[in-house]
Amino acid sequence: MEIVLCCPGAAPEPWLKGLAAALPQARVSEWRPGLPVADYAVVWAPPQAMLDEQAGVKALFAMGAGVDALLQRQLPPQTLLVRLDDAGMAVQMAEYVCHAVARYSRGFAAYEADATRAVWQQRLPRLRADCPIGIMGLGVLGRRVAQALRDLGYPVHGWSRTPQVLDGVVSHHGPQGLPGFLASCQVLVNLLPLTPLTRDILNRDTLGRLRPGAYLVNVARGAHLVEEDLLALLDSGQLSGATLDVFRTEPLPADHPFWQHPRLTLTPHISALTQREESIAQIACKIDALERGETVAGVVDVARGY
Amino acid sequence: MEIVLCCPGAAPEPWLKGLAAALPQARVSEWRPGLPVADYAVVWAPPQAMLDEQAGVKALFAMGAGVDALLQRQLPPQTLLVRLDDAGMAVQMAEYVCHAVARYSRGFAAYEADATRAVWQQRLPRLRADCPIGIMGLGVLGRRVAQALRDLGYPVHGWSRTPQVLDGVVSHHGPQGLPGFLASCQVLVNLLPLTPLTRDILNRDTLGRLRPGAYLVNVARGAHLVEEDLLALLDSGQLSGATLDVFRTEPLPADHPFWQHPRLTLTPHISALTQREESIAQIACKIDALERGETVAGVVDVARGY
Repeated sequence: MEIVLCCPGAAPEPWLKGLAAALPQARVSEWRPGLPVADYAVVWAPPQAMLDEQAGVKALFAMGAGVDALLQRQLPPQTLLVRLDDAGMAVQMAEYVCHAVARYSRGFAAYEADATRAVWQQRLPRLRADCPIGIMGLGVLGRRVAQALRDLGYPVHGWSRTPQVLDGVVSHHGPQGLPGFLASCQVLVNLLPLTPLTRDILNRDTLGRLRPGAYLVNVARGAHLVEEDLLALLDSGQLSGATLDVFRTEPLPADHPFWQHPRLTLTPHISALTQREESIAQIACKIDALERGETVAGVVDVARGY
Repeated sequence: MEIVLCCPGAAPEPWLKGLAAALPQARVSEWRPGLPVADYAVVWAPPQAMLDEQAGVKALFAMGAGVDALLQRQLPPQTLLVRLDDAGMAVQMAEYVCHAVARYSRGFAAYEADATRAVWQQRLPRLRADCPIGIMGLGVLGRRVAQALRDLGYPVHGWSRTPQVLDGVVSHHGPQGLPGFLASCQVLVNLLPLTPLTRDILNRDTLGRLRPGAYLVNVARGAHLVEEDLLALLDSGQLSGATLDVFRTEPLPADHPFWQHPRLTLTPHISALTQREESIAQIACKIDALERGETVAGVVDVARGY
């Protein structure tokens, strides 16, 4: 079995070695122009030429959970595109979001500011019952985040394209379910895939429907958020703040107004990093399953966009 | 049935009303000198005179989980002393500790500092497998914290006076188990009750046994920690930092060296606040059970100290 790897910008060696160790029957090579078509390809941000040349692979594995960038390319028709289900990302995401929510609901940043002035002042916490949290997107990551927040005692609402059932989570779905969902949220957490239907979904209209003084956590894609709308809603007080891990342009340009905004907390797209060992094990497992003629989780519906 | 309430420093009205509503058969009064002995007393930091006069109550309910301050008083012998089991505190504590641990293991404070300088720089996170967390004290609060950290994917160790079994937690116990427990910890979370045996337990010797560069979270009592030993271990680099919610003197004096220390995160004893509604419901429930001749959880072993 032949496997080609193509991940410009990432060091290929650990992936080549890891895949070879996990699939002893396979020969794993880094892609270069002119290689014969492999059985499987493992890619992140591959050049179009690679996709064209390797159009005959049995499956194309994305080295991440979000495949929006890959779907911008011309993909070989009929090719099975498989994304990572989790690979250690869901737990990181749950931790990131719980940290952001706790900072908001418990006022930890204010306590840290007090400490710099040697001020001892207890504040009444926001009651959990008065801090319902809405999760947009109930895929592998969204479900894990919803569960973690529910376990911390918050009322949790979920919104997804199709109806989802998740214990202890109030579910909303589709365009008709969106206004009711938004009106329930004191904190909105975005974990949607980026598709033509979800681009710009966080805008003046949708964010304006949240409870007054709401808080936004965007950990999906920068293009979900209309940045100038966020700034306007912070100015008007409709939003009290936001934690943002993703941006329309990454790295965020040094002169971007987000950097200096006192009510924004920014991180450089680190909410959930692909963990190499877990990703390799998952891809190897799926290749074995495909070779046995079985189906695998994470197959991308190209028309749907995720 | 007669109930007296005595909580100098807290507003009594909401407690009086709440207890009366939850126990319609009871007459609830605020304690004043000369009142006849009631059936039950509900107290926080009562004067010794109140304890002396009301020595004949069937049970004395503490309005908190930690009863170390109450045990400094002369308690009427034979009186049943009952503390709160949880009353909404465990989930707050779990959230507080998870927030502190995430700040350490994910380096969120460093990202916030980067953002003030418009710096976009991803850092490799500490792997969870390389960040074992030790919980001292596996009571109601400690168990909930251990479970939350385990669910976030950290290896978790627990240490308690007597052997405890908790799914997914490596348990250690007693003085003989302490060195092995400490040697396992990259993060140490203290949730012990304060007793003569645990006073000063966080000192140069014990903290010096943690993994190099370890992190301390103290959310139990200030008197568990020898403050000058913490400062010395931060200076030597044996500890990389600490989050402290409790102090030997509270409020922490304005000239205390902790305030300005760059590697300490301080909060004013807010990790878990008594939630009135839940506490009242719990006390009412226990009074009903005692009236039916049943046993209740949370009875303090005065000799043991918790």
